[in-house]
Amino acid sequence: MITSKDNPHLKAIRRLRDKRHREREGLVVAEGEDLVDAARDAGFEPELLLVAGQDVEPQLLDAVSELGSGTRVIGVFRQRWSSPGGRLSVYLHGVRDPGNVGTIVRAAHGLADGPVVLGPDCADPWSPKAVRASMGSVFARPPARADFDEVLAFPGATTLAMVPRDAPALADVEAEPPVVVCLGSERTGLPADVIERCSRRASILLNPSGAESLNVAMAATVALYELNRMAGHA
Amino acid sequence: MITSKDNPHLKAIRRLRDKRHREREGLVVAEGEDLVDAARDAGFEPELLLVAGQDVEPQLLDAVSELGSGTRVIGVFRQRWSSPGGRLSVYLHGVRDPGNVGTIVRAAHGLADGPVVLGPDCADPWSPKAVRASMGSVFARPPARADFDEVLAFPGATTLAMVPRDAPALADVEAEPPVVVCLGSERTGLPADVIERCSRRASILLNPSGAESLNVAMAATVALYELNRMAGHA
Repeated sequence: MITSKDNPHLKAIRRLRDKRHREREGLVVAEGEDLVDAARDAGFEPELLLVAGQDVEPQLLDAVSELGSGTRVIGVFRQRWSSPGGRLSVYLHGVRDPGNVGTIVRAAHGLADGPVVLGPDCADPWSPKAVRASMGSVFARPPARADFDEVLAFPGATTLAMVPRDAPALADVEAEPPVVVCLGSERTGLPADVIERCSRRASILLNPSGAESLNVAMAATVALYELNRMAGHA
Repeated sequence: MITSKDNPHLKAIRRLRDKRHREREGLVVAEGEDLVDAARDAGFEPELLLVAGQDVEPQLLDAVSELGSGTRVIGVFRQRWSSPGGRLSVYLHGVRDPGNVGTIVRAAHGLADGPVVLGPDCADPWSPKAVRASMGSVFARPPARADFDEVLAFPGATTLAMVPRDAPALADVEAEPPVVVCLGSERTGLPADVIERCSRRASILLNPSGAESLNVAMAATVALYELNRMAGHA
């Protein structure tokens, strides 16, 4: 039973709050039974597993947890990365909000067969916020890393740039699979040169008098839903 | 120029962090130029407007801001509430996450003509997190408050319960307008008695091997998109 906050395991968990440290170690912290179970169900073996009251004093586990009081279990797992691919996948460019990245990982797990491909300047999908927003999908369908040139090199892929306006409606776009749905940052969208090199563009039509755009996670989810529907799966 | 943190205006802003206080006063705090502009564009007149370096010392404004350092302006406005209605609107029951409520307010502003109707146990749409997630749509299209009995009393309304499974696919549902899309809490969904009394049910079909559900804000957005598309608007 761990009874000191200076225990090396607890120190290791605290260090993993830092993104550079997570990257260097290639590790991820899963807090709570739901996320730990999701990791194990996906075949991840814990490098470290601490159960409150069994391996560690509950208040010490609470103190290293991002969730705070009442955390019953924390697991540390080795990160895994997918290769890009699938008939339907997502490419993100500059999506910096970890909640958005995690939510898109969850949506792609439900609505696509390929991974979320993280391009430049995206949030770390293994951060506590992203892992939580993914509801464990980050374990079941780990993201991939690639820049846009690598995405363009997918054999026969349709690269579909989602843009806020001045493009055909999503439902009118002919997108032969494999399709890679490409989305950019919340503030500035996809860089012009990425849009330029995509094979198709689409917009989600909104009320002219309403909100000017959707959040990037909503746009990604609607695009995946619509491409699924058009392919006859929904 | 305000130069003391004990200034009554600053104290009033600090008190408005508390939900009960916001409700009692009927006020909302908008932080940053984008949200203050959104409120004014929607015809809200500020009860109080503090510009850093002009009305108040910048570090004192930062100190009362939830955004933290670099806040240039904070406005306090009187809350407004819509009446339920419209050809397409949303009813939420037990959606407690302010980010989800704000995101759904933004989606409905873009994809529906009616407001988001907040039933029991929903997050305060005027909380800083919800206002920020709405990207100002909470001012342009203020939410409504009503319980499910009031929603059922809308003349001729189709109440469409979104459920995670065991219901027709969204695209196969015939929903005569006016349509009220009904969604429940992230963990437990809609209460059984609400589902029972809805006139239609629908699910968003997901990969059988993938994520078990979408986040409630994603489900709301997909439903609004699909109902728009079926009505010939997208």
